[in-house]
Amino acid sequence: MADQLYHVLGAKQFSRAELEELFAASKAMEEVVKAGGDRRHAGRIMTTLFFEASTRTRLSFESAISRLGGTVIGTENAAQFSSAIKGETLEDTIRIITGYSDIIVMRHTEIGAAKRAAAVSGVPVINAGDGAGEHPTQALLDAYTIQKEFGRIDGLKIAMVGDLAYGRTVHSLSYMLANFKDVMIYYISPENVRIPANVKRYMEEKGVRYEETTDLNAVAGSIDVLYQTRIQKERFPSPEEYDKAAGQYIVDTDLMDRMRKNTIVLHPLPRAGEIAEAVDSDPRAAYFRQAQNGLYIRMALIDKALGGK
Amino acid sequence: MADQLYHVLGAKQFSRAELEELFAASKAMEEVVKAGGDRRHAGRIMTTLFFEASTRTRLSFESAISRLGGTVIGTENAAQFSSAIKGETLEDTIRIITGYSDIIVMRHTEIGAAKRAAAVSGVPVINAGDGAGEHPTQALLDAYTIQKEFGRIDGLKIAMVGDLAYGRTVHSLSYMLANFKDVMIYYISPENVRIPANVKRYMEEKGVRYEETTDLNAVAGSIDVLYQTRIQKERFPSPEEYDKAAGQYIVDTDLMDRMRKNTIVLHPLPRAGEIAEAVDSDPRAAYFRQAQNGLYIRMALIDKALGGK
Amino acid sequence: MADQLYHVLGAKQFSRAELEELFAASKAMEEVVKAGGDRRHAGRIMTTLFFEASTRTRLSFESAISRLGGTVIGTENAAQFSSAIKGETLEDTIRIITGYSDIIVMRHTEIGAAKRAAAVSGVPVINAGDGAGEHPTQALLDAYTIQKEFGRIDGLKIAMVGDLAYGRTVHSLSYMLANFKDVMIYYISPENVRIPANVKRYMEEKGVRYEETTDLNAVAGSIDVLYQTRIQKERFPSPEEYDKAAGQYIVDTDLMDRMRKNTIVLHPLPRAGEIAEAVDSDPRAAYFRQAQNGLYIRMALIDKALGGK
Repeated sequence: MADQLYHVLGAKQFSRAELEELFAASKAMEEVVKAGGDRRHAGRIMTTLFFEASTRTRLSFESAISRLGGTVIGTENAAQFSSAIKGETLEDTIRIITGYSDIIVMRHTEIGAAKRAAAVSGVPVINAGDGAGEHPTQALLDAYTIQKEFGRIDGLKIAMVGDLAYGRTVHSLSYMLANFKDVMIYYISPENVRIPANVKRYMEEKGVRYEETTDLNAVAGSIDVLYQTRIQKERFPSPEEYDKAAGQYIVDTDLMDRMRKNTIVLHPLPRAGEIAEAVDSDPRAAYFRQAQNGLYIRMALIDKALGGK
Repeated sequence: MADQLYHVLGAKQFSRAELEELFAASKAMEEVVKAGGDRRHAGRIMTTLFFEASTRTRLSFESAISRLGGTVIGTENAAQFSSAIKGETLEDTIRIITGYSDIIVMRHTEIGAAKRAAAVSGVPVINAGDGAGEHPTQALLDAYTIQKEFGRIDGLKIAMVGDLAYGRTVHSLSYMLANFKDVMIYYISPENVRIPANVKRYMEEKGVRYEETTDLNAVAGSIDVLYQTRIQKERFPSPEEYDKAAGQYIVDTDLMDRMRKNTIVLHPLPRAGEIAEAVDSDPRAAYFRQAQNGLYIRMALIDKALGGK
Repeated sequence: MADQLYHVLGAKQFSRAELEELFAASKAMEEVVKAGGDRRHAGRIMTTLFFEASTRTRLSFESAISRLGGTVIGTENAAQFSSAIKGETLEDTIRIITGYSDIIVMRHTEIGAAKRAAAVSGVPVINAGDGAGEHPTQALLDAYTIQKEFGRIDGLKIAMVGDLAYGRTVHSLSYMLANFKDVMIYYISPENVRIPANVKRYMEEKGVRYEETTDLNAVAGSIDVLYQTRIQKERFPSPEEYDKAAGQYIVDTDLMDRMRKNTIVLHPLPRAGEIAEAVDSDPRAAYFRQAQNGLYIRMALIDKALGGK
């Protein structure tokens, strides 16, 4: 049964054609929201199964199904999931939950958890993040935002900045961008948190051009997209080295002044101090628009998984 | 955009005319509930954003939007709010959440949090308590209960009893009562938790008569409303002094016997031991009716914020 | 008022006629779910008041009301229930909550909590487990599963296996089975966790035949139903004794081979290691069907409590 279901498990599952279809569907969802939502999925139930708190992502999914008339049941904290405490396997949990709803949105702490869930689920599973693994709906909303802001992804120069070793969003986004033509990626990070070899290998296999550097300033003036991420203190041997590294990559008005007129700034959010608040009023600051796009992407995914209108 | 929205932030924002309009709307909501609710806000989404647990208040708001056909998304615990953990500002959180729903009900631990939220929100914000600050919907339901029980507020004698220093409900209720004529307020408390100077000053500016005393018995026979509150042990230098102070203000059948036939007893609830259970069966015990009125007031506020029927 | 309400508090409240009516209603609910649910209780609100986490049970109830068009408000964790923290009695909590919804589903840590709630509630209360007390909806779904799998309960031989002292589900199920004719029960457990005297006394009063034994193998070949439960380590004086006891009662393919062709295996779930995963693919493994039946039973109960279609 599971084979015929539309699961969303990882960024690599999407072909260019599928992405374009999804972007068009997301655009249509913007109109649905503007019109106050519709009732196309009235009576359908979504289970949000969050083994790890991620309020922003959960609320975005819950808003998405609600805007389409559906209902939510769920749990927002793994620590309270009694079955997990009692030692039940994820598979058993899913075998039971699958009978309660029409779609499952799952966040988990372990890599591969979403795939394991999908393997035994009788309803579609959407991966809302599985540990250090994937977070495909984030990558989709990132790509959709670029598409929307420029009208295309082909031919763009995209800088990913910050912790490229542990930040799963830049990995998933890289995989997704590999579907497009003539994309150039700049991986800009401190030496100790460089983009992993397996991501680079994938990009090479797909023929995507990329460059690695530690120098954001050298690149800032020639890019279309600056994708900023957080750098976590605990990755560095000392606070001093962290401060030195993190300080290099702050997006402030000085940096904005050095960038082109139509270069946009993205960030998966939440931000700590890596984008100055003074940048918010710059029309090139696209990160709040980006967050909003997450709603439309998730509506489109849910709609597809539930079989459309 | 935010200027045109109807936010509910503090007790002082309400004029007498607005209160009367709101009381009439709340009365109408009672009829809506009796008829099993209606669907006037079907498709509208409320986000309940509780950075501090307050189940009673949250459920009251969730019931209110549900009775009007709307939907709830939300989080019931700040400790689980991952973005707060990761150091995101409240403003950033609101900037994102604002795109997910049509109204935000927020509880926070910090004074002024609701105002900060309203300043960046694209949808109406209702303050469900911000730390030691305000809790305007509690004050509204308190005032509405008095209006409903007596048919008026003008000319009533109202005693507020207990911890008047730290209990924010008595402050907000005082501000609200200042809209009415010939109200007489008795502030009755132990010496160490007297009503603050700024509240007294406000009442003086508004021309409201008040008296401060430690002696509930002296006043009990001549009041219309006894508004009882909790006294917290930790405010007192020793358990003995607490017991002495708290013991003076217990509402029991003896006290009820000394009060007039139509004097009502209110309490924001939960109560600990400051109203004896034996009092519950007395028709003058209005505190459960008061709690119920919270539903109607919140329905009226939500309805107004969402633009009415 | 409470007397006229349909509360679900304990297994003993159900007569045979009521059980048969409920089984028929549950069967009808299967058809409702297959048809995608209906809207018969649109506008009705269920409060799920869980003073103890039990995600599976809570989601099952929330799915049930959702499939009938109703709405859920609730709290999933007692530790966050501010009123409980502040020392409010359960009765006061219910007196307030009762005004927010049309039905209350409650899980609590204390025996008798559901009865106390029902005594002051203005709306029906369904007991979703009260400590070591009752869990009547589990017993109902257990009995319904047996009825459904065999077309009858009369005349069946049912083995209850595992921790029969502390496992409340086997107590409640025993009480319920006492309504049927010619049932034979085998209580199979380690010596230190035998079925309590009060359960045996009840069965004797009702004229139900039973046997106690420690030997599952001796009985396995002649039973219709094997109701497996968990054995908890902390009940045993040493890990060695636990391993010895628990190891005797594992349902694995060897045991399945020794059982008859139509003997079914039930389990209230979650399971730890007491049923091998290799058994899952055996058609006699009925425990996931059993969990699914919980949805239909709860829909039927909610429907009855809310006054039907």
